[in-house]
Amino acid sequence: MADIASRIEEANALVLKRILEADPLWVDLRPAKEVVPGMTENTILHAGPPVRWERMAGPMKGAVAAALLFEGRASTPAMALEMAASGDIRFSPCHEHDAVGAMAGVISPSMPVFAVRNRTLGNTAFCAWRDLGQASGCFDEETVDKMHWIHDVGMPALRAAVLERGGLEIKPLWARGLLMGDEHHNRVSAGTSIFTRMMAPAMARAVEDRQALAELFDYLANFDLAIVPLTMAGCKAVMNGAHNVEASTVVTAIARNGVEVGIRVSGLGDRWFTGPAQLVKGIYHPGFSEADACPDLGDSAIIETTGFGGCAIAAAPTHVTVRDEPGAALRYTQEMYEITLGKNPSYPIPALGFQGVPTAIDIRRVVESGILPIVDTPIAHKEAGRFRGVIGFGMSRPPMECFEGALTAFADRYLD
Amino acid sequence: MADIASRIEEANALVLKRILEADPLWVDLRPAKEVVPGMTENTILHAGPPVRWERMAGPMKGAVAAALLFEGRASTPAMALEMAASGDIRFSPCHEHDAVGAMAGVISPSMPVFAVRNRTLGNTAFCAWRDLGQASGCFDEETVDKMHWIHDVGMPALRAAVLERGGLEIKPLWARGLLMGDEHHNRVSAGTSIFTRMMAPAMARAVEDRQALAELFDYLANFDLAIVPLTMAGCKAVMNGAHNVEASTVVTAIARNGVEVGIRVSGLGDRWFTGPAQLVKGIYHPGFSEADACPDLGDSAIIETTGFGGCAIAAAPTHVTVRDEPGAALRYTQEMYEITLGKNPSYPIPALGFQGVPTAIDIRRVVESGILPIVDTPIAHKEAGRFRGVIGFGMSRPPMECFEGALTAFADRYLD
Repeated sequence: MADIASRIEEANALVLKRILEADPLWVDLRPAKEVVPGMTENTILHAGPPVRWERMAGPMKGAVAAALLFEGRASTPAMALEMAASGDIRFSPCHEHDAVGAMAGVISPSMPVFAVRNRTLGNTAFCAWRDLGQASGCFDEETVDKMHWIHDVGMPALRAAVLERGGLEIKPLWARGLLMGDEHHNRVSAGTSIFTRMMAPAMARAVEDRQALAELFDYLANFDLAIVPLTMAGCKAVMNGAHNVEASTVVTAIARNGVEVGIRVSGLGDRWFTGPAQLVKGIYHPGFSEADACPDLGDSAIIETTGFGGCAIAAAPTHVTVRDEPGAALRYTQEMYEITLGKNPSYPIPALGFQGVPTAIDIRRVVESGILPIVDTPIAHKEAGRFRGVIGFGMSRPPMECFEGALTAFADRYLD
Repeated sequence: MADIASRIEEANALVLKRILEADPLWVDLRPAKEVVPGMTENTILHAGPPVRWERMAGPMKGAVAAALLFEGRASTPAMALEMAASGDIRFSPCHEHDAVGAMAGVISPSMPVFAVRNRTLGNTAFCAWRDLGQASGCFDEETVDKMHWIHDVGMPALRAAVLERGGLEIKPLWARGLLMGDEHHNRVSAGTSIFTRMMAPAMARAVEDRQALAELFDYLANFDLAIVPLTMAGCKAVMNGAHNVEASTVVTAIARNGVEVGIRVSGLGDRWFTGPAQLVKGIYHPGFSEADACPDLGDSAIIETTGFGGCAIAAAPTHVTVRDEPGAALRYTQEMYEITLGKNPSYPIPALGFQGVPTAIDIRRVVESGILPIVDTPIAHKEAGRFRGVIGFGMSRPPMECFEGALTAFADRYLD
C-alpha cells in the first residue's frame, strides 16, 4: 500500500505539472475531416460518453439532423432523421478523437474546427465552431444557413487571420479574461472582447473581402460566447497532455451527452465511468423551466476539468448563476480547492487574494469528501428544434457513480 | 439659513439628477479648430487652471513645443520654445473651452478631438486624442511623427467608422468595463477591448484603406489606455450638463496643471478655486521615484468628478496602485461615499454588492469630513522630454485649499 500511495503521488505530481506547464496555441481552423483523427465522411461525433442513436437526447438528434442537412447528405429533416437511424452513420464521442463539442457536441466532416496545439508536449486538440442553434439541436433553415456562413465566410476569414498572426497564445487570453470577471465557460464576454482586439490587426491584414471582414466582426460583436469553442479546444489540448499517466487519479475529462455523464481518469486510459445525467437547477429564460430542460449536456465541462468554469466562478461574481446569491461564487470555488491537487498560478482570482484556480480534480478526494465538481453549464431544451439557443444557465454536478466507478476500477487495476 | 439650506438641497438634487440621467454619445472626431469653442489658429489649450508660460510645469512646456512642431509653426524645439515664450500664443485652460486634455493637456488647433454629445441636455464636450509622448511632454521626432499618424491616418479612419455607426453610446461601455475590473482612468484595458469589439464592424465597413485599418487596429491592440480621451470627453459632457446650477455645492471639475490644482463648483460659475499641486505617492516604474515626478498633472480627474477613477477603484482590485494592499480598493471607494450625494445605479460595483459608484462630490461634505477626493492618476516626469510616457501611477488628493476657498466663495455669494 505504501508503494502504491507514493506511486500515485508521483504520478499526480507529474499530471499537475503537465497541466500547469501546458502552453496552448491556437494554430488553425479547418474542416474536421482534414484534421480530426479518425474522422471519415461517414462519421458524426457527439458530446459525452458513447450513446446509440436510439437513446440520444432530443437536442443531440436535432443537431445530427442539422449536420446531415448542412453536409448535403439529406434535403429534408425527415430524410436526415431517417438516415441517422439507418445505421449508415458511425456515431462516436468527440473525446475519442482528441476533440470536444459544445452542448450536443455534434461534429460532421465539413464543420470547421479550431485546432489548438499544446506547445509543451506537442499534442493538438479540436473543437467545432458552434452555431448556437445547431449546438442546441435546431435544424431549421436559419440554423443551416448560419452553418454555411460559418463554413463559407467565417472559416476562411478567421483562418487567414490566425495564419497571418502565426497563431494566438491562449494563456494570456485566459489570464486576462479571469482578471475581467470571466470564468471562461458562460461568462466570457471579456475574453471575446480581448480576442477581437488581439485578432483584429491580423484580420484586417489577411482578409481581402471587406464584406466578409465586416460580417466576421459583426459575429464577434454580437455573440458574447463566440470564443467558447476556442477555449474548449485549448482546455482539451491541456488535459490530453495530462492524460494517460499511469497510476494518476486525476480526472482528465467530464462530458455529458444528455442521458449520461462520463468521466475519464489519467491513469485509467480511455475508459468511461458513467452515471445518469441530472436535470440542472438554474436560471431559466422567461417562459422556460426545469420541465423543459434536457439533462446535463455537452463536452464543455472540459473547461471545469482544466480549472475554469464552475471551479473559477469566484472570478465571475456578475455571472447570472451566482449574481443574486451573495457569496455563492466564492463558496463554490473554495469548495473546489477541497477536491483538487493544486492551484494554477498562471490564473489568479482577484477576489480570493489572487490564489490560482483549483486545478487537477482527484477522484479520491471527490469520493472521500463527498464533494462533486461543480459545472457552470448552459441548458438546452429537451426537444429538438424548440428553441434556438440555450434556455438557461445553471450549476450542475456529475453523479457520484462516475467517481465511485473510477475509484473501483483504479483499485482493480493498481491494487492487485 | 433654512431658506438657503433647502435651496442648496434642491439645486444639488437637480445636479445629481443631471449626472445620473446624462447620456453621452460619441459623435465625431475632428481637428480642434473645427469644433472646440474659442479655438483659434493662435490658441493652445492646456490642462488645469490658468497658468502663464513662465510658470508652466516641465512636461507642459514640452507638450507645447511638440504642438508647435506638429503644427509646423516651428521647425526646431528651440524655435518652438522661443515662440511659446514670445507672447504670440494665447494659452488657455481646456476647461474654459468645453474641453479636457490628459496629462499636460495641450491641445493645438489641428489636433483631433473626440466630440461627445450629452443627449439628455444637448451639450457637447471634447478631448484631444493624446499621443502618450506628447501628453507627457516629449517633443522628439518619434513623438511628432506619432502625432502626424494620429492626424493623417488615425483620425480619418476612426472618424469614418463612428459616422458609419451613427455614434457610439458611452454608458454601456462604462457599465460593462466596470463589471470587468476597469475604473476608467488608468485600468481601462477592458474598456479598450470592448471599444475595439464594438467599433470593429463599422471600421471594416467604413475604412477603405486596408493599411490604415490594420494600423488603427494595431494601435488599439497595443495601447491599453487608448480609450481614455473618449472617456474624458464623455465625463466632461456629463459634468458640463451639471454645471452652472445656481446654489449647487457640487464639484463639476477637478483639474491639475502640474503647479496648481483647481476645482470648479456648479453654483459658482466658471471661477477656479486653487491650491498647490502635490507630489504623488505611487508605484514608479523601475529607475524612477517621487524625486523625478511632476506634481499632480492633467484634466483627467474629470473622471473622478464623474464618479469613476479613484471613486470607483473598488471595481479595479487588479490595478497597480491598489493591488498589493489588501482591502485598499474597497476602502478608497467607501470613503468617497462620505463626500458624495448619491450612487449611480447605471454603474454598479460588483465587489460592493453592486452599489453604484459614488457620485456628485459636495464641497460642504469635503470640508466638514476632512476627506479629500482621491484621484487615481498617472505620473509624468518633471523634466520635458525625459521619458516617453508615464513614469508611474499613484493616488493623489487635491489640496483642501480648493474646497475651503470654494466654500468661502459660496458663502459670500449665497449667504449675504
